[in-house]
Amino acid sequence: MEKGRVVVFGGDGFCGWPTSLHLSQAGYEVVIVDNFSRRRIETELGAQSLTPIGTMQERLKAWHEISGRQIALHEIDVAEDFDGLKEILTSYKPIACVHFAEQRAAPYSMKSARHKIYTVNNNLNATNNILAAIVEVNPAIHCVHLGTMGVYGYGAFGSVIPEGYFKVKVPLEDGSYLDREILYPADPGSIYHMTKTQDALLFQFYAKNDRLRITDLHQGIVWGTQTPETELDERLMNRFDYDGDYGTVLNRFLMQAAVGYPLTVHGTGGQMRAFIHIRDTVNCVRGAIESPPQSGDRVRIINQMTETHRVRELALIVQSLTGAAIDHISNPRMEMEENELRVANANFHALGVPPTMLRRGLLEEVADVAHRYRHRCDLTKIPCVSYWSAERARIARERFDSATSNRAAAV
Amino acid sequence: MEKGRVVVFGGDGFCGWPTSLHLSQAGYEVVIVDNFSRRRIETELGAQSLTPIGTMQERLKAWHEISGRQIALHEIDVAEDFDGLKEILTSYKPIACVHFAEQRAAPYSMKSARHKIYTVNNNLNATNNILAAIVEVNPAIHCVHLGTMGVYGYGAFGSVIPEGYFKVKVPLEDGSYLDREILYPADPGSIYHMTKTQDALLFQFYAKNDRLRITDLHQGIVWGTQTPETELDERLMNRFDYDGDYGTVLNRFLMQAAVGYPLTVHGTGGQMRAFIHIRDTVNCVRGAIESPPQSGDRVRIINQMTETHRVRELALIVQSLTGAAIDHISNPRMEMEENELRVANANFHALGVPPTMLRRGLLEEVADVAHRYRHRCDLTKIPCVSYWSAERARIARERFDSATSNRAAAV
Repeated sequence: MEKGRVVVFGGDGFCGWPTSLHLSQAGYEVVIVDNFSRRRIETELGAQSLTPIGTMQERLKAWHEISGRQIALHEIDVAEDFDGLKEILTSYKPIACVHFAEQRAAPYSMKSARHKIYTVNNNLNATNNILAAIVEVNPAIHCVHLGTMGVYGYGAFGSVIPEGYFKVKVPLEDGSYLDREILYPADPGSIYHMTKTQDALLFQFYAKNDRLRITDLHQGIVWGTQTPETELDERLMNRFDYDGDYGTVLNRFLMQAAVGYPLTVHGTGGQMRAFIHIRDTVNCVRGAIESPPQSGDRVRIINQMTETHRVRELALIVQSLTGAAIDHISNPRMEMEENELRVANANFHALGVPPTMLRRGLLEEVADVAHRYRHRCDLTKIPCVSYWSAERARIARERFDSATSNRAAAV
Repeated sequence: MEKGRVVVFGGDGFCGWPTSLHLSQAGYEVVIVDNFSRRRIETELGAQSLTPIGTMQERLKAWHEISGRQIALHEIDVAEDFDGLKEILTSYKPIACVHFAEQRAAPYSMKSARHKIYTVNNNLNATNNILAAIVEVNPAIHCVHLGTMGVYGYGAFGSVIPEGYFKVKVPLEDGSYLDREILYPADPGSIYHMTKTQDALLFQFYAKNDRLRITDLHQGIVWGTQTPETELDERLMNRFDYDGDYGTVLNRFLMQAAVGYPLTVHGTGGQMRAFIHIRDTVNCVRGAIESPPQSGDRVRIINQMTETHRVRELALIVQSLTGAAIDHISNPRMEMEENELRVANANFHALGVPPTMLRRGLLEEVADVAHRYRHRCDLTKIPCVSYWSAERARIARERFDSATSNRAAAV
């Protein structure tokens, strides 16, 4: 049964590829639009996916062989090529589009002025172009966007983080109060996260002015590699990033354990973060498409996460599984080293996605992937060398110098 | 006495030019950086400044003759040319920069998808490039930015609009409340205004991460044309926009009266807005430079406005001065047609700028300028034909058709 067309912008990426397969499997006619920027950045950083991923043409051929289903592919830079983007929406007449077409690594966004500029330029223009094209082509197209839990900051208000909207009391001059619901005050921790808070303002405006239907998925840190669809054939395998810029924390730990590298905990590891498995990501995107918000509603915001953990807890779990050492290194980021985090996710649960919790079996599955391809690992790419400021770079350098001279003194 | 160097990004514009002259007169060594986009847009729209303004080279030559002072000029697109921008900050070593380098007309930003894209791309990249360059060159450079009162929306909370930060009570699960101060919830009414709310997030991030010193001036609608410096010689005259995209409301009314065109009130004219005279703008920018915020403070936000009025009140004032007719036309914008607006501006007053209030003498001065150059007016450029949505365009078209057929029936 054909469910209609969905355009996946950024369908070549870590979340985009398994989402495309999942939607295709579920009966949607999927069109992938990508500029292959993630593969170009691989080349720039000299850090490949640990898993050997095929070209997009190989992937789509394999999917056709296995499933009998076709996925269309168009190489378009949606941040640059508005005409190309508009033509896609005009000719394919999708019911929804999924917007993954953003630079998604916080450390990469902080590497240098060039990387800050690239991230702002790419992410903001991509989002605005997609929304402006929807207005012109068909305002009924539902736009599902992958945001991040990082837009909220981490616990500044001491209360549960709601799904996007925040109830407050506004004092009036006469001493009384008004009850109001506002967009949760943004407190991004990197240029990358900041672009997602700017996206939120674009969504708010287009929903108000043009009555567009928009779902913004504020996603936790993703872990895992495979989904039921990417597991069907080695040629469909998802990417696995382990480097200091693109690797997400839990996958990095599992990879580091596989190659015998001490787990790199930034600072005390007291940072509490929200997590989700990649198979829940793809389910949630499908769920969002299947229950679109009405036109004229405000932007629907969903906290796409299943559980919270402290970074050092994750390191201890991986240590208990693998016997890996733990190394507390100086934190390249500007962030609170200890924070609390409580998150509301009723909208997420309402999508009917059965949550995948962190558990031994799944962790071992990811560790297996890391182990199988450990020969592809470049150990020099493991440390994060993107510093949030000159000050953070200086502290890291001094600690490194002092560790080196301690070792020299000991010899 | 030399007070140090100031770079004025966008120093060729309606606010940028008189600010540059005022700072030069006050003893600052001024460097203008502009890409002359405003002059290119004049050509695009076929709507020139009512006042005949000289080339920038003529203007600077005249200023040198009259004041004996030099202003340097560099043609750089700060949204595109990061290297050029960085070189300016490196070689001139300014104490401050003033950032006017943004597309500033709400109707222009809503003309079409192309104009939305241009506005987002230009404004966001300009701001981010300037801030990223300051981080790399010298984080002590104070950045003074021209924002807008429009970031607040108009009266949604029913309380006085504070200068940027909003006191609220946050409910906790135990029934108690926390007192918190947050960035005022953004509610922009156009793509242009939205870019200014996105700028605010850039400022917040760079102030937090890099401890930059930033002043964001949330300016009311500017009226007036001349400042004490631009009046010194005809070759220094400021621009005067009267067209439907770039003309500000009070200047448009004075101009319409001068050419015998009915005053174009959008809808009921019940929109209440904040206003400021151009001579206060330049004083306020100088005041901000002379009292920079400390590094590590949050962004300083100043409501740069002196008074509020309803649009229909302004029309009545201009009618009483000139006898002009008033025409209530269908509103091309999506906005509340009647709103209240109360604004706090203690930070503005603390800068010591004596406020210029709307008064007969000054209104007559502006009307004189409009009258003197009325032969340069193109009447076809007066209506605003930039619609906020297809729906607004349709309503305007139907009213026009019905007015035309009524006239036909009457004949």
